[in-house]
Order: sequence, then structure tokens, then C-alpha cells
Amino acid sequence: MLAASSQVGAFNGGLRRLALTPEDKAARDQLADWARQGGYGLKVDALGNMFIRREGIDLTLPPVLVGSHLDTQARGGRFDGILGVLSGMEILRTLDRLGIATRRGIEVVNWTNEEGARFQPSMNCSLAFSGQQTVDWVYDRRDKDGVRFKDALDAIGYCGDAPVGGRVIDSYFELHIEQGPKLDAAGIPLGIVTGGFKMHGMRIAVRGETSHVGPTPMSLRRNALVGAAYLAVAVDDIGWRYTPEEGKTTAARLDLSPNLPGILSDEATLYVDFRHPSSARLADMDREVEAAVAESARRSRTRIEIAERWGFGGLDFHPDLVKLVRETAQKLGVPSMDIRSEAGHDAYHMTKICPTTMLFTPCRGGISHNEKEDIDLDMTVPAINVLLHAVLARAGASAR
Amino acid sequence: MLAASSQVGAFNGGLRRLALTPEDKAARDQLADWARQGGYGLKVDALGNMFIRREGIDLTLPPVLVGSHLDTQARGGRFDGILGVLSGMEILRTLDRLGIATRRGIEVVNWTNEEGARFQPSMNCSLAFSGQQTVDWVYDRRDKDGVRFKDALDAIGYCGDAPVGGRVIDSYFELHIEQGPKLDAAGIPLGIVTGGFKMHGMRIAVRGETSHVGPTPMSLRRNALVGAAYLAVAVDDIGWRYTPEEGKTTAARLDLSPNLPGILSDEATLYVDFRHPSSARLADMDREVEAAVAESARRSRTRIEIAERWGFGGLDFHPDLVKLVRETAQKLGVPSMDIRSEAGHDAYHMTKICPTTMLFTPCRGGISHNEKEDIDLDMTVPAINVLLHAVLARAGASAR
Repeated sequence: MLAASSQVGAFNGGLRRLALTPEDKAARDQLADWARQGGYGLKVDALGNMFIRREGIDLTLPPVLVGSHLDTQARGGRFDGILGVLSGMEILRTLDRLGIATRRGIEVVNWTNEEGARFQPSMNCSLAFSGQQTVDWVYDRRDKDGVRFKDALDAIGYCGDAPVGGRVIDSYFELHIEQGPKLDAAGIPLGIVTGGFKMHGMRIAVRGETSHVGPTPMSLRRNALVGAAYLAVAVDDIGWRYTPEEGKTTAARLDLSPNLPGILSDEATLYVDFRHPSSARLADMDREVEAAVAESARRSRTRIEIAERWGFGGLDFHPDLVKLVRETAQKLGVPSMDIRSEAGHDAYHMTKICPTTMLFTPCRGGISHNEKEDIDLDMTVPAINVLLHAVLARAGASAR
Repeated sequence: MLAASSQVGAFNGGLRRLALTPEDKAARDQLADWARQGGYGLKVDALGNMFIRREGIDLTLPPVLVGSHLDTQARGGRFDGILGVLSGMEILRTLDRLGIATRRGIEVVNWTNEEGARFQPSMNCSLAFSGQQTVDWVYDRRDKDGVRFKDALDAIGYCGDAPVGGRVIDSYFELHIEQGPKLDAAGIPLGIVTGGFKMHGMRIAVRGETSHVGPTPMSLRRNALVGAAYLAVAVDDIGWRYTPEEGKTTAARLDLSPNLPGILSDEATLYVDFRHPSSARLADMDREVEAAVAESARRSRTRIEIAERWGFGGLDFHPDLVKLVRETAQKLGVPSMDIRSEAGHDAYHMTKICPTTMLFTPCRGGISHNEKEDIDLDMTVPAINVLLHAVLARAGASAR
């Protein structure tokens, strides 16, 4: 399945499969084919989230969910998200092959637009599924070209008739590549994810003044590009200061206008992202960013303000599920280490409505969101086996 | 004429009249109408350069050229370039009204794409007119959307049948707003432009690596945005260091890819522009930029290289014409100061083929390349009167 998936949206050795594009549709169609071939139920909700169900014996019990996402970054890898969905499919097939029935149904989920590479914010469809935003709010998100989420969803024919959320879920498991270097460096095949880093995002608006690049004296210039550059450097410096405690910062995106030779730009929008294992220390980083905003404005003679803030994470996964994964790994003799997720995942939102946890597998060199993202199957299968047994324990194995 | 011109491509109190757009066509049509109404000849060359001719008595003599450009920046003013073209038209009308014939013909020129806001480099049509580039080279320039210059020229119907250059020109005069604050601050209506600052431009390519904004350790990041930001700040700092000697630097344009939240950018292209009255000192600035490139690469762990270099200026205008303008101003009692142009102008290229000079008029607060660009007619007409008398002296007044 991984090999077949890696053909869909293939780009420069990796994948380019942005949410709700023809490439995303092709990946969804492929998953739906596999669902039909396995004889599983397939439901698609009004946000395009896909649920592939292997029925349990007791139809009254809420299902166990396992999954992740099939969309990728603009220059993404073949495993980020995809491994979690296909691991779920592999679990269903394995149970079939071994003739194992479960008391609860098991559903494999493919969340729409996890990456947020096309529609911001990321993970907005699990956000709505978990009741933290409305469907209409997601519908109104627009991509860089102004295309509305709902129109893009309709265009690929994946606006389903299942309601978004509003049903009881027993538990949610998500297996994912680590996207960092720790497991790979330690040679350990399983990260038991105990929770997530706290992440804060900011959209920062810089306001300068257009002017001629030639005769305008330096003292009269208000170049928004320079204001944003001061701030991007300061944000990077903050990341380095917090490195000993695993804090990180990113100047991720910068939009400029008019952004032409011959004229100073009067508008810049800088998107920054910073993360820390501790929410309290992240608040300290907030204050450093705010100080950098003021200092960058002073040095560039521009006006700079934080126009929008968002965040996620800063949470612990469910102790029962973390314990279940830990004990399963011990039983199966799979070496593991505890780890906190530094990336955002749909699992974060699912903690709001059901017991949730995650399992990490190594990726080579920690490289992710890059076409060179790669894994070693020998170092991946053990964690998938742990996932299988943990899901099976939760779903309740039963002679058919 | 200024009031009528200010309606064509009106934008936010200024003008948005990019080269070879429908707005540029409308401005050209307006100028052509005025030419017809005045009974002047109109020739358009194969680059869209427009020449409006008031015939002289001696048809064998090369003409005096006077003019500038009607195109503007994306957010430009109502006078940059336009004042020079319309001053030329006003001279033709004044000579008609006063019944003054000249020995030489006088031609008012509107140069295509002076600003370079749509097609880079700027001033490429006077470059070709003066024999420093081929017409085909100009035709192959492309705008941000990939539109070819020639196709855009055909689309507005201004690819004329006159050859580009290749004829003898007696002299070229260009009147322009200063685009800096010196004349306005001094309350002096005429800048006698003795020459131009030396300008160097560079396209600088930053190469990083895409990666996840979350888990990637700071020490493994190669964020092209951060590399470009270090460099933009360093370039700005260089400008400040050279401020006492009127050196200036600009980080003018920055293109990033993929420039999305969630992923580090692996490509950045920064366009920088720096200017100095002295060519030797500009070479010192070059070396400082080169050092900043190396240091920014080191600090951001990216590869940075200067991918392209260009330049203009660093020239003196023709001593005979500068002297003519100076003596004319003295005769007419118009206060003046000597000044060097810091912006690029088509006049720079015309120095290659004929005696050339420029006259500057004040603009309020030195603001230009900005919708708020403004002038005071009382402070502008004296220089236009000097232009009239200088052109007349050169063309040779004669009883008809």
C-alpha cells in the first residue's frame, strides 16, 4: 500500500498532494478502493473526513478509531500521515487474515487538510469533528488563490453525507513518523507519545511606506521588508536561546507588497511559530517575541503589530492509553522511549472528545516535510505491531 | 494636461499605470490625441517608444529630444516621469502660441517601461534605442506572470513601425521631479543635474532545505527565509554606515518558496540595490555586501550566492548642456542648486549617443514611488521655463 500510495502525487522523490487537489482525490479514491476490496464500510462526512469501518460484534458499542491523514505538504514525504492511515488498513486486513473478530468496530480515519499547506489553519477538520469549530467556519477557509474550502471539496466530489462528529468514539490511536531525529539517533523503533509540545502561532503585520529605492535618505525609509527581516532574525535568535530546553522558533512565511525592484515595500506579513515542552516557558517566549516586535519596529521605523494568535498542544495523552501502549510494547519486547510530540496532530483535537494517544516511529535523520523523508520498514513494523495489539485490546478480541 | 493624466490609472490618490497594461495604453492614447490636436507628427517605434515632432525649418538637422516616461510604479505618483513628457508638450504648445519657429525639429519622447515595475530591467527601451541592447532582447523580457514583453506590446497595439534608434539626435533634455528631499527642503525650484549616482543591483539566491517547523532541532535547520533575513538586515546596516557620504542600500524584493506555514522554505531570492555618488566607494560597498553574504550563510546554515549583478549611472552629463541650463537659469533669475541624480533615468542611456542633461524640480517631502507623491506648481514652472529656453537655444529660434 505504501508503494502504491507513493505513486499518487509523486514529486521529486516525495509527494505533492495538497488537500482537496486532484492528487488528494486520487489518494482518496485509492483508499476507497482498498476499503471496497476489503469489504469494509466507507463513510465520508461533510468535511471529506473518510471513515473505513470493520464492524464489531456488538453494534451498540462506540468504535475504536485509528488513523491519520493522506494529504501532504507542497514538498512533502511519502510517510507523514500516510503511514498512520495505512497502518490502520493493515490492522483491518491482518484481523481478517487471522479471522479475529472484535467486540467494538474499528474505524480507520483519513482526516482532511491536516497539513494546512493549502487551507489554514492545519487540522481544521478534526477540529470541527471534535466540536471545537463549526463546519461552516471550515467551509469559509480560503487558499492562497482565494478558492473556498467548500468549493474545493465539492470539486473533488468528497463532500459526503455523514454528519461531522456528534457521535461517541471509544478511543483514538494515531501512529506517525516522529518528524524529528531522536528515535533514529537512538536506534529505538517506538516512541510512546505521552503528550504534545505547546505551540503558539502568530501572524504579524508590518506597515511601512512605499518610496523610491534611490534618492530616499536612509533616515526617511520605512521598508516593511527590513522590519520583517529584523523580526525574522530576532525570532530565530529566540529559538537558539531556548535550544537547551528544546524550545524552537520558526519564521515560516513572509508575504510582501508591492515586493518589486525600485520601490520600498509598505506591507509585510510574517508568520511565526514557536514551540516548547512547557506551557509556562512558552509564555516566556511569547514575551520575548513581543519585545522583538517592538525592537524591530523601532530599528526599521515601521509599525509592527501581532494581528492574530493561535495555538495548540500543551497537553498530555490519556494515561490509560499511554499505559496500554507501554505494556503492549513490553509484552511484545519492542524497545521504546517516551517522547513528546513537537508537531501538531489531529490527535490533539481528538483528546477533547475521547481517550487518545499516539505512537511514533523513526524517520531517517529526522527529515520530514521534505521530499527526502524516508523510513526503514524494519524499524517501523514493530510499532505497527504494538498498535495492532493495543487497538485489539481496546476493541476486545473475541472468537467469532 | 497633468490633471487629465492623473485620471488615467488613478489609484488611491496616485497612479497605477504599469508598462504595457490597459492603463498605459490609455495614457499613450491621451498623449497621441494631444499630438494630433497640436498638428504634430507622431512616430512609434518597434518598442512602443513614442516621438511627437514639431518640425523645424531645416529638415536636414537632427532634432532636439525632450521627454521622459508615462508609465508608473505599481503604487506610483502622478508626476514621476509624467511631468517630463508633459513639459515637453507644453514647450511645443508654447512655441506654437508665440509663433516661434526653430531651425531644428523638437521631439517629445515617451519611453516605454522606464520604471521596470513590470518588466525588468527598468529603462530597457532607451537602452535599446541607444544601441546598448537588441530589440529582440527586450522582446523576450517577461513579467511576474510570465507574459512576454512583445506580447504585451502587441496586446495594447503600440508596436510601431519606426526603427528603434539608429538615427542622429542633436541632444536630449529630461526634466524630472527630484524624488528626494533636497530641493524641497532648501526651497529651491531647480536642480541642475550634473550627473548620476552609481547604482549596483544584485539578485542573491539563498538555498536552504525544507523541513518541519516543529520537531526539527534548531541546529538542523536551513531556513532560506532566515538566511535572506540576515542578509536584508546586513544590507540595511551597510546603507546606514555609508549615510554620511550619501550611500544608500535597499533590500527591495524577496521571493520565497514554498513560503507556507508548517514548513521551512528552501529557496529565497533577495534583490538588493545600492547607490553611491562615487564609483570607487560603491565598489567598497560591493565588498561589504559580499562579506554579508558569507556571514548570513554561516549564521543561517544556508548556501547564499550572488546570482546576477547589474548597474547603471556613475556618469556626468554633457558639460555644454549643463552649462546651457546653468546660464539659462541665471538669465531668467531662477534659483538653482547643483545635484546628482540618485535614481536611474532614461537620460543615463541617452548619454551614450548624444549630449544629454537633466533638470530636477522639487517634490513635497521628497516622497516618490508612493501615491502621496505631490508637487507645487509654483515651484515647478520656473524649471520648465528654464527647460523651454534651453531647448529653444539648442534648437535655434528663428523668425518663421
